[in-house]
Amino acid sequence: MEYLKEIPKINYEGSKSKNPLAYKYYNPEEVILGKKMKDHLKFSMAYWHTLVADGTDPFGDGTMERPWDEETTDPLERAKIRVRVAFEFMEKMGIEYFAFHDRDIAPEGETLEESNKNLDVVVDVIEKEMKRTGIKLLWGTANLFANKRFVNGASTSPNADIFAFAAAQVKKAMEITHRLGGAGYTFWGGREGYETLLNTDMKLEQDNFARFLHMAVDYAKEIGFKGQFYIEPKPKEPTKHQYDFDSATVLSFLRKYDLMGHFKLNIETNHATLAGHTMNHEVRLAVDNDSLGSVDANQGDLLLGWDTDQFPTNVYDTTLTMYEIIRGGGFTTGGLNFDSKVRRASFTVEDLAYAHIAGMDTYAIGLRVAAKLWEDKAIEDILDKRYASYKDGIGLDIVNKKVGFKELEEYILNKKELDSNDSGRQELIESIINQYIIG
Amino acid sequence: MEYLKEIPKINYEGSKSKNPLAYKYYNPEEVILGKKMKDHLKFSMAYWHTLVADGTDPFGDGTMERPWDEETTDPLERAKIRVRVAFEFMEKMGIEYFAFHDRDIAPEGETLEESNKNLDVVVDVIEKEMKRTGIKLLWGTANLFANKRFVNGASTSPNADIFAFAAAQVKKAMEITHRLGGAGYTFWGGREGYETLLNTDMKLEQDNFARFLHMAVDYAKEIGFKGQFYIEPKPKEPTKHQYDFDSATVLSFLRKYDLMGHFKLNIETNHATLAGHTMNHEVRLAVDNDSLGSVDANQGDLLLGWDTDQFPTNVYDTTLTMYEIIRGGGFTTGGLNFDSKVRRASFTVEDLAYAHIAGMDTYAIGLRVAAKLWEDKAIEDILDKRYASYKDGIGLDIVNKKVGFKELEEYILNKKELDSNDSGRQELIESIINQYIIG
Amino acid sequence: MEYLKEIPKINYEGSKSKNPLAYKYYNPEEVILGKKMKDHLKFSMAYWHTLVADGTDPFGDGTMERPWDEETTDPLERAKIRVRVAFEFMEKMGIEYFAFHDRDIAPEGETLEESNKNLDVVVDVIEKEMKRTGIKLLWGTANLFANKRFVNGASTSPNADIFAFAAAQVKKAMEITHRLGGAGYTFWGGREGYETLLNTDMKLEQDNFARFLHMAVDYAKEIGFKGQFYIEPKPKEPTKHQYDFDSATVLSFLRKYDLMGHFKLNIETNHATLAGHTMNHEVRLAVDNDSLGSVDANQGDLLLGWDTDQFPTNVYDTTLTMYEIIRGGGFTTGGLNFDSKVRRASFTVEDLAYAHIAGMDTYAIGLRVAAKLWEDKAIEDILDKRYASYKDGIGLDIVNKKVGFKELEEYILNKKELDSNDSGRQELIESIINQYIIG
Amino acid sequence: MEYLKEIPKINYEGSKSKNPLAYKYYNPEEVILGKKMKDHLKFSMAYWHTLVADGTDPFGDGTMERPWDEETTDPLERAKIRVRVAFEFMEKMGIEYFAFHDRDIAPEGETLEESNKNLDVVVDVIEKEMKRTGIKLLWGTANLFANKRFVNGASTSPNADIFAFAAAQVKKAMEITHRLGGAGYTFWGGREGYETLLNTDMKLEQDNFARFLHMAVDYAKEIGFKGQFYIEPKPKEPTKHQYDFDSATVLSFLRKYDLMGHFKLNIETNHATLAGHTMNHEVRLAVDNDSLGSVDANQGDLLLGWDTDQFPTNVYDTTLTMYEIIRGGGFTTGGLNFDSKVRRASFTVEDLAYAHIAGMDTYAIGLRVAAKLWEDKAIEDILDKRYASYKDGIGLDIVNKKVGFKELEEYILNKKELDSNDSGRQELIESIINQYIIG
Repeated sequence: MEYLKEIPKINYEGSKSKNPLAYKYYNPEEVILGKKMKDHLKFSMAYWHTLVADGTDPFGDGTMERPWDEETTDPLERAKIRVRVAFEFMEKMGIEYFAFHDRDIAPEGETLEESNKNLDVVVDVIEKEMKRTGIKLLWGTANLFANKRFVNGASTSPNADIFAFAAAQVKKAMEITHRLGGAGYTFWGGREGYETLLNTDMKLEQDNFARFLHMAVDYAKEIGFKGQFYIEPKPKEPTKHQYDFDSATVLSFLRKYDLMGHFKLNIETNHATLAGHTMNHEVRLAVDNDSLGSVDANQGDLLLGWDTDQFPTNVYDTTLTMYEIIRGGGFTTGGLNFDSKVRRASFTVEDLAYAHIAGMDTYAIGLRVAAKLWEDKAIEDILDKRYASYKDGIGLDIVNKKVGFKELEEYILNKKELDSNDSGRQELIESIINQYIIG
Repeated sequence: MEYLKEIPKINYEGSKSKNPLAYKYYNPEEVILGKKMKDHLKFSMAYWHTLVADGTDPFGDGTMERPWDEETTDPLERAKIRVRVAFEFMEKMGIEYFAFHDRDIAPEGETLEESNKNLDVVVDVIEKEMKRTGIKLLWGTANLFANKRFVNGASTSPNADIFAFAAAQVKKAMEITHRLGGAGYTFWGGREGYETLLNTDMKLEQDNFARFLHMAVDYAKEIGFKGQFYIEPKPKEPTKHQYDFDSATVLSFLRKYDLMGHFKLNIETNHATLAGHTMNHEVRLAVDNDSLGSVDANQGDLLLGWDTDQFPTNVYDTTLTMYEIIRGGGFTTGGLNFDSKVRRASFTVEDLAYAHIAGMDTYAIGLRVAAKLWEDKAIEDILDKRYASYKDGIGLDIVNKKVGFKELEEYILNKKELDSNDSGRQELIESIINQYIIG
Repeated sequence: MEYLKEIPKINYEGSKSKNPLAYKYYNPEEVILGKKMKDHLKFSMAYWHTLVADGTDPFGDGTMERPWDEETTDPLERAKIRVRVAFEFMEKMGIEYFAFHDRDIAPEGETLEESNKNLDVVVDVIEKEMKRTGIKLLWGTANLFANKRFVNGASTSPNADIFAFAAAQVKKAMEITHRLGGAGYTFWGGREGYETLLNTDMKLEQDNFARFLHMAVDYAKEIGFKGQFYIEPKPKEPTKHQYDFDSATVLSFLRKYDLMGHFKLNIETNHATLAGHTMNHEVRLAVDNDSLGSVDANQGDLLLGWDTDQFPTNVYDTTLTMYEIIRGGGFTTGGLNFDSKVRRASFTVEDLAYAHIAGMDTYAIGLRVAAKLWEDKAIEDILDKRYASYKDGIGLDIVNKKVGFKELEEYILNKKELDSNDSGRQELIESIINQYIIG
Repeated sequence: MEYLKEIPKINYEGSKSKNPLAYKYYNPEEVILGKKMKDHLKFSMAYWHTLVADGTDPFGDGTMERPWDEETTDPLERAKIRVRVAFEFMEKMGIEYFAFHDRDIAPEGETLEESNKNLDVVVDVIEKEMKRTGIKLLWGTANLFANKRFVNGASTSPNADIFAFAAAQVKKAMEITHRLGGAGYTFWGGREGYETLLNTDMKLEQDNFARFLHMAVDYAKEIGFKGQFYIEPKPKEPTKHQYDFDSATVLSFLRKYDLMGHFKLNIETNHATLAGHTMNHEVRLAVDNDSLGSVDANQGDLLLGWDTDQFPTNVYDTTLTMYEIIRGGGFTTGGLNFDSKVRRASFTVEDLAYAHIAGMDTYAIGLRVAAKLWEDKAIEDILDKRYASYKDGIGLDIVNKKVGFKELEEYILNKKELDSNDSGRQELIESIINQYIIG
């Protein structure tokens, strides 16, 4: 049965096409830098936004018109229908990965037991659809923030029962991720933080968070789950302060609690900017620390102070993000997961396709431009030249730790004139980037 | 004598050129929408940034290498040399307009009299250079913020003598602007605001500001200056709160004090974003209120909270700004003034050229894309369709004020089903913009 | 029947009391500056937050434990129970005013007719309770943002039917406000703005908004409603850009569309800071333009970028707000409406009382401090001295428009030395404020 | 010779005093929590702001009236006079510590040799004054950001000669700090960051920064300097991105490069908020990681996006900061250094005293309130109760790592009902804080 009659199979038609239901830049099989575009980009559909979100916002009700949700009032039946819609959508779009929270795919029951049973029912359907289509699971996760039991946090709750409940819930989420062959498992600590320090024992809470993650590592070993664990940084929202503030904060945490070998980062564009960073900064930092895992591909509005999770349409962002990813060697377990939601006013079924096309085409442009920059060494040559002084002489001695303050003072006192500084050439480099983008 | 040996005449070489000292997109004589590019864009050099700024920032000294400044230690002689450098630069760049503050072009003397004499000497040189080159004055202004006498404001100072001094200074600045055939005169109220409301009589200060502007209007009539007056909004910096916060605030002020007919807006990109607005919003608002005057063309960094005044290199910004300008009928007296400074690390003479090329090419791209959007009615057709319900029936009655609450209630009570809402199609429209930009 | 068994009558016990269910600073009958505290402050309960909100946020479900809501599953019956709870709460707290949206007090029906009938049923109960208790309606309003029909705005919707529906809805809301003797009627344009300028005819939308308000003015005359109309500024959220951005923007709009005589401002603390202003700035601006109407008393978190609507507990904010209100002559029709919601984690019934006590005590402290500052002329004397130069001589000539640029230039050229500037003394003044607060 | 005739010895006169030149709350010898106020607070004067800053800002010239600077035009002589002014000021204020950059205290020469000689001359004078007065050096540092040679960074410069120069400069700064018995040495990386990632090898730069710090550690050992090293986080300004973004970022860096044992944090209030954190968060994080070193005591303006470095006058900030410091056991080597500058309009000599009094009194209030909160266990009791579930049963098993996901799942499946969550009581706690502050 076809649910998405408004959406045909989306094909690549090239940059001249006026067909809104076609890719203009994303040509999945085209080879760039020796790899297919689809293998560079590894697009993933986010189950929560595409199948579950209905346009509700803090000031208003849902707006989305989803006819398939009206076929039944039974939550479990609806969940099964949504699986079919999801896979039909991914097939038509040519999206080969997806990601989910446990509570997106199956309704929560009265008890954990019932919730787990619901999951098993739906996971059966998902498994069949995955087999049928070849679509793969990028990562799974557990929703530890929506239910009111998590009001004060999950693994950082002051209530030990809630820690225990969260543990049990993650156990199951890991099991179904494992069963579905998930390449990764993500921790986003939506309520792992505080509303006010005045009622918070931050140290105990962070210690507990670390204990929780170690339990996850142990349990993965036990069940043979080899997928990559990710932590997803976000500075605030819903809580006033979230412990996984940004990449640097998470890296500090992983180092402190001896978790560096077990976790990589799942970096989101909008979370990066909410923390005061560019996305390419966050990716660079992850790469420099051997911690780039996966990317949540959206964009924010820098004039707004909350997570807007818009589909990415800014070519500068996608170019610079893809450049850092290429520079870092490309994705291994991770991919570009559209943690992006159609605008509340984009409420039709077609908009789901338009929005994903927008995001995929924009990332395709970004990949093309970034690959060209990389091939031409347009940026790398600038860097090589700029840092040349550390490749011999006193610079190399510094790098090799052959000199200390005394030797360096002597060097300076003996040197008539310092080697002159080079211009940073920022405006020229930005011009060059524009030339690569516009052609 | 040639001062800028590093900078040749900058020519248009097309988008394939690898020559950093050439335009790739700005082709001044090319006709777009029936007008030459240079007449759409009306680029203007900002005297203060290009000739005076030296890279000083709150944490460090100047970095700029300007050999011509070392030819003499006499401030007035240096000022004259700078005029020649300025015109050589504009000639080489093909920039046909400039803008200045009184204190940029000539050194301030011990007394107002002496300052005015210095101005006369330098204005003689400028006048000759203008005649020689055909370069025109976009607007003049007075610097009422740098001298310590303006510590508490100029026309809004609590000290009436300072108001008087500012008046005398603006009188002279208007006279020289008039003498040089300036197309406009700008008021940017750098210190017209407050540091803390606790010591501020905001009402008296704003009343005085209005009195000051009325005096300017009167004096313009007296001397026959027909140039356009502009107010330039900025929300903060240097003062904590500036009275000309944003376009809406300035329009409110102009309306309150009966100044709407006399002033238009000089809108700056970076000031727009500091106030929480997009640049295209500010331009649209000005156009909608028949108040678009001129544009300060720079860009900010949305992750930073101060005025970075970077050369504009973001094609989205320039496209959307040019689109609003085209939609508003184009510039009359105003233009695109590069209130943009080279980065502190872009300290060479060549960087001045690279930076202006970056800005001019980026605006040229913006113009090309915006013109195409306009010609194709890519956006206007969407709007026409979206608002069609106000062109007949109940919508037209609303617009024509033929109905009130009672009639509308009756209409609703009688209508079985409301006409359905249309999707906003934001993602699709953003895709289309990308297609126009990337081609 | 008593619903709020956890909450006794809240009495003033003075600043030494350790009773969490007592006022420590708010002593309603105490006379300050010749007026009872309760008449200065005119506290109002916001129906939506206190009776309807359940702790739902964009990342999670409701948390609030409200036993009375479980007494019935019939929405209309529940609405009637809530009225009784509301009045019991206000009586116990000693709150004499309230404010509501139409959709808070009664459930929306399938049709406007049904919704209006529901309103009539609930308004009957409210009217009785008002009579019984003497509690008064500060203002009413219509919710034109939650229902999905308002997805693209209400009076600024591109769909004329939605404009009509909004008109009909406001008509009814005005009628019930009138019936209940409301002292005011508020317009907060939650969806009156845009998500992207690319699909927006801002001029038509703003013209329509003005037409809508004129209809309201006309209809008020027709039914004899003499309450004050308010517009409540907010810069963003839920829409990306809201037309009523801040006080200056609203004043500009009112002036442009000839509405100044009919509307005053309802200013909210958290909206002020989201727009980049202090609350006292916004109140001052309103007072200076004879437009102070009412105040939405909450506080935001300046490190967060969304409307947190917290109960006000910052004494600086309440002191400076009350100071401006006293300076402006005090409230006439308006009051301090707690547009404040208990934190999602403050989910018990007691928290409702704690939170209102927190807010009322903090405003009571603010009133006490502000009144003392006013009586002692601690600030006013500073201002008098600071602006003395405009009271005679050249300053008075400026104020009286007796001089222009020429006379002022002559004055300056003849004056040997300018009168010196005074220090702003910001740190000293801030110390003095602290001394008044701490005692 | 007395330089500061306008400033008498500042004494404690109690909270009723109207004398602007007296402490109302700071009573240095008063014992609180078993320690003198002055030993809790350890106030320090910042040489750069108090002796060197002149009110210059990016839009205007200096405003400060400092008669002693006009006694000589010789920079070295002026530097010596400033030392005497500095100590006279500290004596009169009763400030027992100070902090400096090398370039504040002595003029930079043409060569490093000359600069070092200038330092020696001035340090002689400082040493004598320290001996005479008993005033101590809180910490020293080197200015590695103002000179144009540091345009691209110091230890993170792409130019190895600049790294060498910075090393030589720090060597000398450490030596004089050592000679003056400095209790600490601070690294603030003003230009250690980047303007654009496009021209930056972030990894090499950070590696070099770590190499630099290791050299400092080695050299300290060599010369026997036992003072504490500090790193001062700041997210941005002057550079677009600074590597020492916030406390978490610095801790991550220290852990990565094996520097944790050698460095603590010097945390600044205004830097905290620029990074999106409260100051008490940053102090808490430092304490939780055994890394609280010293505090730069100022305040920012949360509505402005740059470092305003205002004297601290907000009692909430000082209370919560002092609370965290007390909770952390108090200062050892560190103190409260007024990295605070008088407002540009507070240009008189008296303002220096008013501003320091404002800051010291506000911190004294904060200390008094925090100490009372601590003694009463007003907050600690709340925490004890809130986290009680981790003290036995399943909670204790979690803390002791006796359970994993399987045991916790079993626990949950067997438990009929989870222990209920407690309200966070934020509003009540904020009320209590107010009661402690207002009394």
